[in-house]
Amino acid sequence: MAIEGLSINLATTRGQYDFREAVEACLKQDITAISPWRDQVHKIGLKEAARIVADNKLRVTGHCRGGMFPAADKEKRAVQIDDNLRAIDEAAALGADCLVLVVGGLPEGSKDIGAARDMVADGIAAILPAAKAAGVPLAIEPLHPMYAADRACVNTLEQALDICDLLGDGIGVAIDVYHVWWDPKLDSQIARAGAAGRILAHHICDWLVPTTDLLLDRGMMGDGVIDLKRIRGVIEKAGFDGPQEVEIFSTDNWWKRPGEEVLATCVERFRTVC
Amino acid sequence: MAIEGLSINLATTRGQYDFREAVEACLKQDITAISPWRDQVHKIGLKEAARIVADNKLRVTGHCRGGMFPAADKEKRAVQIDDNLRAIDEAAALGADCLVLVVGGLPEGSKDIGAARDMVADGIAAILPAAKAAGVPLAIEPLHPMYAADRACVNTLEQALDICDLLGDGIGVAIDVYHVWWDPKLDSQIARAGAAGRILAHHICDWLVPTTDLLLDRGMMGDGVIDLKRIRGVIEKAGFDGPQEVEIFSTDNWWKRPGEEVLATCVERFRTVC
Repeated sequence: MAIEGLSINLATTRGQYDFREAVEACLKQDITAISPWRDQVHKIGLKEAARIVADNKLRVTGHCRGGMFPAADKEKRAVQIDDNLRAIDEAAALGADCLVLVVGGLPEGSKDIGAARDMVADGIAAILPAAKAAGVPLAIEPLHPMYAADRACVNTLEQALDICDLLGDGIGVAIDVYHVWWDPKLDSQIARAGAAGRILAHHICDWLVPTTDLLLDRGMMGDGVIDLKRIRGVIEKAGFDGPQEVEIFSTDNWWKRPGEEVLATCVERFRTVC
Repeated sequence: MAIEGLSINLATTRGQYDFREAVEACLKQDITAISPWRDQVHKIGLKEAARIVADNKLRVTGHCRGGMFPAADKEKRAVQIDDNLRAIDEAAALGADCLVLVVGGLPEGSKDIGAARDMVADGIAAILPAAKAAGVPLAIEPLHPMYAADRACVNTLEQALDICDLLGDGIGVAIDVYHVWWDPKLDSQIARAGAAGRILAHHICDWLVPTTDLLLDRGMMGDGVIDLKRIRGVIEKAGFDGPQEVEIFSTDNWWKRPGEEVLATCVERFRTVC
């Protein structure tokens, strides 16, 4: 019987499985919701990936990822827009709940984070009509401030929701606990997002103490300091009852273990601490 | 002739100098403002440190540091309060502009960041009367959100200023660009702090890309992505014209170089990029 409310972001078993293997391994554990990364889909081919999704009646809780809008010149920004349009088509073909946007950081050589943020808003505005036409909601994922320079200059839910309010319908947020757990305004901004119908995804993992690498040392739920049940409660109260999607980047630990063990642990922790 | 507007936080040459050596090295470069750490003062003795400060007419832009309020039980919290009271006395003896507060993170085993934040507000409230009596302003230093778990659960200027507003006079903020440069509300909160007369210190260094260690990989001004001149402009416009205090933790780079080179580089960068 399918495990209700649990999705696996396929980055979590990136070290072990390709798309097809990951789906098979998830199904063995009765996990029927996934969120793939574009390179994983490209490797197997979009059509085949979509067929596997349809044949197995999988829920795709998000397609990872669009974004990366800021660039040093207009031409490079246009290339990024084109790439985002392709990502929207892929998300539509997969029937994904949303296209996750990691918006991008500072262009090479720039110290102007304000300008980068303007490029993000402009970039999203440029792709929003296509996303709406394709029926693919865009999910801005605010990233932890430690990624402001090199990955995403949208760093709080409040900031992401301000962009949403500017742009109107068809856009919302992906709430990843890793990025937002520390935010003193977390509860109020989750409530704001829910009231506006803008919660599109809920990602989980844990913040380890100590954290030894800025990018690749995320923890399994329960191994860190994030109060996952509390945050889930706030998110549900705000009206979102979609799956919790496990997304763990972990070079030195979870990516090195057998995929079966990783997924079994996800299931066990989902049932006990999430 | 003294270099106007530059202070050296003695953590910057922690790998090279003790208190006395650091002061001598600063004076050789015409730097007449410093900010010591408590362990450095304790090692030479408070009286001797205060004598060196007075004899050389040094400005002490801050005493580092009080704080670390959250703890698992009342007794431990009381121990912290006592320690903060001693830090206030030291700051007074040194004639410091402020006592910098790194407020502390989650108590051992806790996932309740809300409770930790309450303990911070309670702790500051408990020491504020003594600080006012001693004429030592308390400077809450919001730390980068990547330190929320283990060093400081006050992570934005807005949050720090909310605590200040709650507690009244005698308290303000230390604005360290490393911790706040990413904040989308940076300019508005600096303006708010200035309007309330709450800017007590301005710390500088730089955010390196990539950053290889969460704690000990801070960059020299100009080597990273922070627009230091722009932020200084916002701070001055808000009414603060005190020194910029260089605070760099850098195990693998600056702490390994000759102290003289480090200080000379601070002076050169202060003159060109700050």
